[in-house]
Amino acid sequence: MSLENSFSKLCVSAQADSLAVKSLVFKPKTPKSAVPVPIVVVALQTTSTASALIAGETGTKDPRLARDDLFASHFKCGSAKDFNLGHLLQAASEFKLLLDTAIEHCQDGQILKLNDELSISKSDLSHYLQQFQPVTVDFSQEAKKPITKASASSAGSTTPYIQTKSAALEDAKLIGITVDKKLDFSGWYQQVLTKGEMLDYYDVSGCYILRPPSYAIWEKIQRWFDDKIKAIGVENAYFPMFVSSRVLEKEKDHIEGFAPEVAWVTRAGSSELEEPIAIRPTSETVMYPYYAKWIQSYRDLPIKLNQWNSVVRWEFKHPQPFLRTREFLWQEGHTAHLTKEDAEEEVLQILDFYAGVYEELLAVPVIKGKKTEKEKFAGGDFTTTCEGYIPQTGRGIQGATSHHLGQNFSKMFNISVENPLGPEHPKVYAYQNSWGLSTRVIGVMVMIHSDNKGLVLPPRVAQNQCVVLPVGINAKTSDEQRAIIHQKSKEVEQRLRAARIRAFGDYNDNYTPGWKFAQYELKGIPLRLEFGPKDMANEQITAVRRNDNRKYTVKLSDLETRIPEILEDMQKDMFLKAKELFDSHRVIIEEWKDFVPALNRKCVILAPWCGVTECEEDIKDSSAKKDDGEEFEADDKAPSMGAKTLCTPFQQPQLKKDQLCIKCQRKAIQFTMFGRSY
Amino acid sequence: MSLENSFSKLCVSAQADSLAVKSLVFKPKTPKSAVPVPIVVVALQTTSTASALIAGETGTKDPRLARDDLFASHFKCGSAKDFNLGHLLQAASEFKLLLDTAIEHCQDGQILKLNDELSISKSDLSHYLQQFQPVTVDFSQEAKKPITKASASSAGSTTPYIQTKSAALEDAKLIGITVDKKLDFSGWYQQVLTKGEMLDYYDVSGCYILRPPSYAIWEKIQRWFDDKIKAIGVENAYFPMFVSSRVLEKEKDHIEGFAPEVAWVTRAGSSELEEPIAIRPTSETVMYPYYAKWIQSYRDLPIKLNQWNSVVRWEFKHPQPFLRTREFLWQEGHTAHLTKEDAEEEVLQILDFYAGVYEELLAVPVIKGKKTEKEKFAGGDFTTTCEGYIPQTGRGIQGATSHHLGQNFSKMFNISVENPLGPEHPKVYAYQNSWGLSTRVIGVMVMIHSDNKGLVLPPRVAQNQCVVLPVGINAKTSDEQRAIIHQKSKEVEQRLRAARIRAFGDYNDNYTPGWKFAQYELKGIPLRLEFGPKDMANEQITAVRRNDNRKYTVKLSDLETRIPEILEDMQKDMFLKAKELFDSHRVIIEEWKDFVPALNRKCVILAPWCGVTECEEDIKDSSAKKDDGEEFEADDKAPSMGAKTLCTPFQQPQLKKDQLCIKCQRKAIQFTMFGRSY
Repeated sequence: MSLENSFSKLCVSAQADSLAVKSLVFKPKTPKSAVPVPIVVVALQTTSTASALIAGETGTKDPRLARDDLFASHFKCGSAKDFNLGHLLQAASEFKLLLDTAIEHCQDGQILKLNDELSISKSDLSHYLQQFQPVTVDFSQEAKKPITKASASSAGSTTPYIQTKSAALEDAKLIGITVDKKLDFSGWYQQVLTKGEMLDYYDVSGCYILRPPSYAIWEKIQRWFDDKIKAIGVENAYFPMFVSSRVLEKEKDHIEGFAPEVAWVTRAGSSELEEPIAIRPTSETVMYPYYAKWIQSYRDLPIKLNQWNSVVRWEFKHPQPFLRTREFLWQEGHTAHLTKEDAEEEVLQILDFYAGVYEELLAVPVIKGKKTEKEKFAGGDFTTTCEGYIPQTGRGIQGATSHHLGQNFSKMFNISVENPLGPEHPKVYAYQNSWGLSTRVIGVMVMIHSDNKGLVLPPRVAQNQCVVLPVGINAKTSDEQRAIIHQKSKEVEQRLRAARIRAFGDYNDNYTPGWKFAQYELKGIPLRLEFGPKDMANEQITAVRRNDNRKYTVKLSDLETRIPEILEDMQKDMFLKAKELFDSHRVIIEEWKDFVPALNRKCVILAPWCGVTECEEDIKDSSAKKDDGEEFEADDKAPSMGAKTLCTPFQQPQLKKDQLCIKCQRKAIQFTMFGRSY
Repeated sequence: MSLENSFSKLCVSAQADSLAVKSLVFKPKTPKSAVPVPIVVVALQTTSTASALIAGETGTKDPRLARDDLFASHFKCGSAKDFNLGHLLQAASEFKLLLDTAIEHCQDGQILKLNDELSISKSDLSHYLQQFQPVTVDFSQEAKKPITKASASSAGSTTPYIQTKSAALEDAKLIGITVDKKLDFSGWYQQVLTKGEMLDYYDVSGCYILRPPSYAIWEKIQRWFDDKIKAIGVENAYFPMFVSSRVLEKEKDHIEGFAPEVAWVTRAGSSELEEPIAIRPTSETVMYPYYAKWIQSYRDLPIKLNQWNSVVRWEFKHPQPFLRTREFLWQEGHTAHLTKEDAEEEVLQILDFYAGVYEELLAVPVIKGKKTEKEKFAGGDFTTTCEGYIPQTGRGIQGATSHHLGQNFSKMFNISVENPLGPEHPKVYAYQNSWGLSTRVIGVMVMIHSDNKGLVLPPRVAQNQCVVLPVGINAKTSDEQRAIIHQKSKEVEQRLRAARIRAFGDYNDNYTPGWKFAQYELKGIPLRLEFGPKDMANEQITAVRRNDNRKYTVKLSDLETRIPEILEDMQKDMFLKAKELFDSHRVIIEEWKDFVPALNRKCVILAPWCGVTECEEDIKDSSAKKDDGEEFEADDKAPSMGAKTLCTPFQQPQLKKDQLCIKCQRKAIQFTMFGRSY
């Protein structure tokens, strides 16, 4: 069954053999300036949920039962007493969810009694909680001290308890990242973004603040992509963010995909609007009535407009910074062409630009291909995509999509022109494309490159590329010598800036170089330039790359040539490392028995496939976790997720003669890429 | 009394001596592709409102009583029968309003009966209708044929009938502008924007589509201003468009200014939200809680963030493209500083940048100064502004504002740091600024430079600077010669583009050069480059400036140097012409008796002034149209508007010793600029 958003719909009447379940909320000790991340524990009434164990599981300090004000601020629920699991859907910000293994071990049909009113089957509860990415915990174990990093890394155990336990980094400072990327990927992701100052959580759920370091990356992407599309004749424009319901609902297939997520304005000041007005989830229906008006002759074609704007999709699934947000920034291109060939050529041209954003700017490898009928954009003819890969979770991620809409929208909105062959020929409906790339790209980039010390940013897009730091100054250093080192460091900074390298210096004497090193590693500054007495004596500077700590000694006379080279090499190395990981986890699988094990090795799969939608659905179901005792939980965050088609890559391995589909008995028509995905 | 937005509040009970008034709506003949602009006629029941007269008044064709569907689409009113003047507030798009002089001639206290339920005093009706810019019409006259342009220009008559009558341009083609800028400014403005393809009307009232030619100007402004602010250490960021009501309402003075215009989201998909969420009208309260969180030490200051975004202010006044729109694009800068001096210095620096956008990019002269207490930004300490001037209406227009907020917001949001002098000193609340410039600038630019042939765009910001047109090709021209002229023209275009001049060519043989000239004049392409047989023979090209039709002959060998020079000269000349008009209509007035006459000569006024708010209000009231038989209607679109303070210019004339305030008996403390305004 599909996930239900409305919790109460799942509830059933209590039965004699119901098992009582408790839902507790804990608040960990949190710095005053930070928003607390509550911990929700769902356990059998009979299970003892020790605070120390919860602390260990979540890498937090001193979790205590939350007071009513936290229920109000985080779950819009008056008090602890009124709280039930339905309130999780209203969470105003992040929370962690721990689920008692004793519940997981129940039969699917077991009825669980949540309170006097609410009861639910175990399988429905599991499905419902799954959207919040629960961590399953064996509360019957004693709380253990965190195990060391070394033993965590080598631990082959698959029990989630041990894994989560060890996520806390032993040597982490409070100011740095405190959880291990390998062991608590989502906790790490949150920390690396907030502590790296890319992003902050906002008091409207699902919305985030893009701070300068992430917005600067977006600006680099904008500039690059904007130049590319203008060179092929695209112009920028701005259409209103509001859509009347009449217009929004014009294209049925299309609106069906968006309707549940549309935000509606119904009031202005103290006046109720006569008709509610939608905020655009995308602008096809906003723009196309005007295309119909503006396009009066085939000479008006092609029309190629692009917008840089924000759109709103009020999703009820658990939000995730950059990847799933209720408002997000993107560009949306909408073009109309006289011929199908012209439109199709552009679809692929744009897809190449998207791949360029990932590979050339963000150092993220992607695979270009075509979406299946099931996964394509609703209302369009076909969708092309570039697909990325997140090594830690082994999941694929849709990077950006370029759609050919065919004549579907042009017929609906009457975007047509007289036939260029003459009025005796039938009129021609325009062939349309739409294509979009969002700030999601930044999330993918962070997931792929960053590490336990913080952000790692590709030099081409980093807001700041180099930090210049005076070093080697100690108690014995004379004032004069200190002044000279500072002054020379500033000269280095000035020269780099004059050479259009984005450099800054930190000459604050209140902090040690070591503290500064950690700070700028956290923030992902690509290159650290250390300048001390020895460097001065040798007329050199020491450069250290953020991605791999590699050190270079650069003669001061070579500054303007060597530093850009080092930055470019770093960019290439970051790409190659990511590509190697993707390549080694993209495997050709031809027999079904090898399919799920490959997923569990965190691979995406290229498999010969028949192209039939029923088979696609069968593969998804059959690769999801089943209740037959098998252990698929190698990825503890997405243990039961089935494999979806990611795309049919344009670059195809050779199909064998008479090769059958990996799953059914039909003939394979192509290799398609499958994987668990975001 | 002040204008009321809610029409029904104005209504009174009918009396025995009430005069019956009718409200009729006409639809003129309109091309199918265009949105019809209805004409609302408000007249005494006894007045005969001939269709031909209405056509003449409005420069439209064949107006007929509108059908119910127009009432529904334009006024959200089920049918003609249900229509009353209150529906004007709900107008979905532009309409024209004609008001019977017979009503204007009634006594102020006369009760007018609109229908069985609604009656209203004449003065309240006048006030209410004023917001829709009515044109007063003497229906007792016979419909006359349009008078000729020449006689219209020389006509000294002040009766609105003759003025509006002649607004239709006699020689206008349907495709070009059909009304005269001098005589129907608002009709002209609408046409020049839509026919020049800057903007289109949208089906949500108060929202407009920025088409590529206007968005390209916005991009030029963005690039220029963005470089300037980054050079002084401002960084870009993006904050969510949504605000919770709790946060929005934190600063009382501030929210009071915006509350009536805030748009509220109350529903997502089919779920009602627990709490309504506002769309930002501006981001002070969105951003400042996070400033409080991020600023922990005086070393974190200054913080200087800017956003390029859109904001929503759901105004109920009549919308006007670029000048008053419900959603608009702008930038908003928000900075926090350790010292007042630092903050104040920035306020003025930003104001200089704003003046630069107007004067250097848009060729629009502005006056820099300070707003009065009455006109400053709510919640701030003081507001600086650059003020522009629209010659046709003689009205001032606020260009862009830069506010010093003092410590008002920082105290409210607790944006504070430990005193740099040490913890024994009191903690310091940050000194804050906010500053914004919106797409309004584009409207001001169009109003000032454009003419009856269409747009006139300053070369520095125009999307396209030159159009290359082959000319002199006729029936006698050989195919070979035509081919050579085309090829040489294309070479010119290529060379210009290579020299980074934004040039394009039009080699379509289906249209005559004359038709093309008119087209590109309508669109405001700064320079037309004509290339014909004679030009080819002389190795030259003929350049024609859009602003003044001035012709240049340019040797082909000088193309890359001369064309940029001509464009730059044109930019300067456009600025000088606009400056001359502003300078000659900005007059020093020292006696009150000269004040209103100067306004009526379409001037803004520099007057010695006491600086007291009560006096400011008195000046506004006293300069508004009064019912004493005097004729102030030189500007028929804003006949009864009083003069507001525009700013106190930084550049001050010399005050005489013991100079008194222009209006009251207090001592003048400065010259302040007064004017009717947008």
